[in-house]
Amino acid sequence: MTQTHLSIVALAGGVGGAKFAHGLAQLLSPEELTIIVNTGDDFEHFGLSISPDLDTVCYTLAGLANPETGWGRAGETWQAMDNLRQLGAPDWFALGDRDLATHLERTRRLKEGQRLTEITRHFCAAWGVKHPVLPMSDDPVRTMVDTAEYGELPFQEYFVKHRCEPRVRGFRFEGIESARPTLEVRAALARADAVLLCPSNPWVSIDPILRIISPLPLGDPLTGAGGPGVRVALSPIIGGKTVKGPAAKMFAELGIPPSALAVAEHYRGLLTGFVLDRVDAALAASIQAMNIQTLVTDTLMPTPAERKRLAEETLRFVLSLLPAPS
Amino acid sequence: MTQTHLSIVALAGGVGGAKFAHGLAQLLSPEELTIIVNTGDDFEHFGLSISPDLDTVCYTLAGLANPETGWGRAGETWQAMDNLRQLGAPDWFALGDRDLATHLERTRRLKEGQRLTEITRHFCAAWGVKHPVLPMSDDPVRTMVDTAEYGELPFQEYFVKHRCEPRVRGFRFEGIESARPTLEVRAALARADAVLLCPSNPWVSIDPILRIISPLPLGDPLTGAGGPGVRVALSPIIGGKTVKGPAAKMFAELGIPPSALAVAEHYRGLLTGFVLDRVDAALAASIQAMNIQTLVTDTLMPTPAERKRLAEETLRFVLSLLPAPS
Repeated sequence: MTQTHLSIVALAGGVGGAKFAHGLAQLLSPEELTIIVNTGDDFEHFGLSISPDLDTVCYTLAGLANPETGWGRAGETWQAMDNLRQLGAPDWFALGDRDLATHLERTRRLKEGQRLTEITRHFCAAWGVKHPVLPMSDDPVRTMVDTAEYGELPFQEYFVKHRCEPRVRGFRFEGIESARPTLEVRAALARADAVLLCPSNPWVSIDPILRIISPLPLGDPLTGAGGPGVRVALSPIIGGKTVKGPAAKMFAELGIPPSALAVAEHYRGLLTGFVLDRVDAALAASIQAMNIQTLVTDTLMPTPAERKRLAEETLRFVLSLLPAPS
Repeated sequence: MTQTHLSIVALAGGVGGAKFAHGLAQLLSPEELTIIVNTGDDFEHFGLSISPDLDTVCYTLAGLANPETGWGRAGETWQAMDNLRQLGAPDWFALGDRDLATHLERTRRLKEGQRLTEITRHFCAAWGVKHPVLPMSDDPVRTMVDTAEYGELPFQEYFVKHRCEPRVRGFRFEGIESARPTLEVRAALARADAVLLCPSNPWVSIDPILRIISPLPLGDPLTGAGGPGVRVALSPIIGGKTVKGPAAKMFAELGIPPSALAVAEHYRGLLTGFVLDRVDAALAASIQAMNIQTLVTDTLMPTPAERKRLAEETLRFVLSLLPAPS
């Protein structure tokens, strides 16, 4: 890319968001790209403070992620986990030996009083991640999934322990009323030309971030005045299904037929642009009817090259939506 | 051993105590032997609750201990530690991947409200340790070492981080006033024929246990009435030196020439018997003059067979001190 002075903020959850952020990071400089990550998935386990989405994004950007799973570390070993099982410990959340170091040091630094933002910056420096990766808040937010079978479940119990099987009735973001966006998040949004909503789960990955930053001025959608005027989402739903994770299932259980159109409607009023897959091309007209510009392309990212290709097409689309320099 | 109905309680710290306890465990049934372990070394690190002496004793009895070091796990791997170092985390306390499982599950169970005694029993069952291993208390006690260079240091910082180099001025056992012996500890002592003080550090391994159990009746040293009448210590000091650890250095820094005699004097008023090494045979007369019977033998335990041999000789000595059946 040759665009200078472009300032992009990407909002990301776990695997899908991390892949697209990695695509952007191959094209934009650290000055041009900031990634704001959901921390509603964070939880405490065995006394450790675990931030699954932050870790997935950082490991992916650092080239440390397990390419098979999209989460966790490449070349991981499982000595601790095997010995936990021998002790009859809960083993539903995978704790790799390398990954454990991240949780241990995060926990230690949090107990020392460091902010999650500072800790993440330190980790990124150690791992060679040059683009700013910002937790959405330094204040704890905990996504609770209301289910038909178990009532409210902490997100990781719904997601990992119960493998997304319970029927979803709604969501609650514990702590969100008092959680504030950090100074770093505010500053990144204030200078952003465009905000990109990565192809992450709208309900449990992007919504918590939007709730956190919603008091911030998002600017005039026509002129961009007062904030990033270009807001583009990428659909995590392709042909009515999600590549990974429960987004489509959640839409269906909440009574909304899952589709790229449903995603666009979910973000209605916020978006100026929307990226959807070729298989959903027929939905583009309905989305345009909501006054949202569309880009129809291949949105699957099976390889790092595909991440970069999708990011490049999305950035060209973003440029087309930016107001002409005055 | 063919003695039935013998009931022995061994008080143990880390490596030296664990080795001797392992010798006893090769000779006595789980009904005949209970091991009470110092928890003054316990500390919190990276948010984990770590009990070094308990782990050393349990790993040793389970055959899981690293035979080279005497502490930690055999066949240990260090993925977490290597990755902690990459994050610039403090690395002065070795956290092996297998060992981490113990700390993680202990921490989880403590947070659930389980007693350290129950947790240790559960771990022993999982590891195949049949002899009861009891923490001296379920209440936290934290050994603080007063040093000339740094003032008070938590024990592990003195012991591991500063490698016992600071000059010792004294000790404080934080929490010892309110810490109570457990019901399990009380019951074991109530039925014990003899209490053995393992060749552990008198100042920081055995003294905290004695402080915890000191309100308990220790019985008449002549008749055994009212408690275990036979109290035998094994000297951790051989020829003025310790095999491992800072006991001799501590005696010297506190103005007491380190020797087996100094150890016996340290426990004066408590002991009915004392086991010392052949190289210290000349001190036996002075110890006997304190009305303490002596056993002079080889007290080094370089091999498991030597642990068993020393335990067997010590048990014969104990039997000789027991009052004749009435």
